[in-house]
Amino acid sequence: MAKTRMETATKIAWIAAMAAAGLSEIEVGSFVPPKLIPTMSDTDEVTRASVLLPNVVIVALAPNLRGAQNAYAAGAHRVSIPVSVSEGHSRANLNRTPAEQIAEVAKIVEWVRAQDRNMEVEAACSTAFGCSIDGVVPTANVVRVAAGLAAAGANMVTLADTVGYGHPAQIKDVVRAVQAEIGSKLDGLHLHDTMGLGIANALAGLEVGVRNFDAALAGLGGCPFAPGASGNIVTEDLVFMLESMGFDTGIDIEALIACRRYLAEGLPNEARHGHVPQAGIPKTFRALAA
Amino acid sequence: MAKTRMETATKIAWIAAMAAAGLSEIEVGSFVPPKLIPTMSDTDEVTRASVLLPNVVIVALAPNLRGAQNAYAAGAHRVSIPVSVSEGHSRANLNRTPAEQIAEVAKIVEWVRAQDRNMEVEAACSTAFGCSIDGVVPTANVVRVAAGLAAAGANMVTLADTVGYGHPAQIKDVVRAVQAEIGSKLDGLHLHDTMGLGIANALAGLEVGVRNFDAALAGLGGCPFAPGASGNIVTEDLVFMLESMGFDTGIDIEALIACRRYLAEGLPNEARHGHVPQAGIPKTFRALAA
Repeated sequence: MAKTRMETATKIAWIAAMAAAGLSEIEVGSFVPPKLIPTMSDTDEVTRASVLLPNVVIVALAPNLRGAQNAYAAGAHRVSIPVSVSEGHSRANLNRTPAEQIAEVAKIVEWVRAQDRNMEVEAACSTAFGCSIDGVVPTANVVRVAAGLAAAGANMVTLADTVGYGHPAQIKDVVRAVQAEIGSKLDGLHLHDTMGLGIANALAGLEVGVRNFDAALAGLGGCPFAPGASGNIVTEDLVFMLESMGFDTGIDIEALIACRRYLAEGLPNEARHGHVPQAGIPKTFRALAA
Repeated sequence: MAKTRMETATKIAWIAAMAAAGLSEIEVGSFVPPKLIPTMSDTDEVTRASVLLPNVVIVALAPNLRGAQNAYAAGAHRVSIPVSVSEGHSRANLNRTPAEQIAEVAKIVEWVRAQDRNMEVEAACSTAFGCSIDGVVPTANVVRVAAGLAAAGANMVTLADTVGYGHPAQIKDVVRAVQAEIGSKLDGLHLHDTMGLGIANALAGLEVGVRNFDAALAGLGGCPFAPGASGNIVTEDLVFMLESMGFDTGIDIEALIACRRYLAEGLPNEARHGHVPQAGIPKTFRALAA
């Protein structure tokens, strides 16, 4: 979550460049009241432009039914609904209990099913690996929330290390526990690099079968209601690891790195993270693929 | 390898503070001709002071017999001999072929065995996961060099990702291949974070049984003869991961982080890396241990 605002035209150009670089899914914004998050006030316009791009699933975040309806109206292919596992983050971020937010997801699923066009409903379990407000988040709570979301009809459930407190053994344990409950409805991990373990946590997820990872170009991001959270894991470094290990991400890493110019132009005051862009692609890249 | 020079007294105080924080092994310097690496001209004095500290193995690097003799004279508990796996790095860093350097290790082992006091001889295989000069380093070459070093009588062999090109699957493959050849004589990994995969690579090593990792406070370091190499993995972040996962490193992470003041004072112009020192220890630390 950037603190400064990128021009709408720059956002749209950036998203188009990311899609052209081979990203298969892009979360383009959040349908929240502009007075809460002013930098997201153009999400409608950005979504409407983005869904015209070929070969990319456009995801919009929405905290409630109203937001999901707006995402639908803008043509989003998928709406992502945040559901905090911890009570403290749920109240701070959504002003609801986890149970109330699961009920909101059920309402959204019911509403979407009554529409003409399909829109996927993804439920994103925030603070699944720890909370800067509540501290430890028991695995049993994550499993219960994930099960509730699957029962509510969400097409897919993701687990988010919103504040970046998770460690690799925990990632494996929690993912396995949730998989045991909801199977392949567990569809992805959303990781932050607060403690420097983000890429290692992605590796841990990979080793227990996760194949979808949220990341942000240059590690942009954070969470306004998660004190201390730093940015998402760096897309460039993640792609470098995956491609090095022999996974075909479909992403042109050089084109991906070139997308950083939209950040340099559009958010000049935000720190741009990432080791691979700084070091350059080594001559051994892909030659060393496992 | 810092580019600027830390005062000798500051080095010694820093090493003492690191030992007090619970580090069980510390590499304190390199016995090389001062005209080659001027910042290491006080290695003799630093080693002589460090070996007086309790409960810590003091390691000194030495590229040849002459350096190993100097390390012995200074009282080093262990001498670490770099042996490049790739020809290009071997010539650039040591002005010898890998085979010639293996012969040098044999000479060092023979010399040490003839002395009164024991000094462990560690052979550190540089460029074991890629070389910025030669590119891909075949696993078979790493195995051959490691086997040669074990046969030469080295007490332990470590594998170094000198330029930071390695990826987790490769780490596992190469470690397993070397373990198959020399067993538990493979004693550790030396990792750099050039591509942002350093901590993930440590996790990969951990998962195939490696229990000793080289790291540097604040990720200090690099290699003067490895163009593009960035610093070592950050000790603070590595310790955070290991302790979070339930490993007992014996290190007091708060005391470790406090050691950064010696870098701030002694090497003010060197970048200090590390996520954990910046974010602070979260309240969930150790409570989440697996």
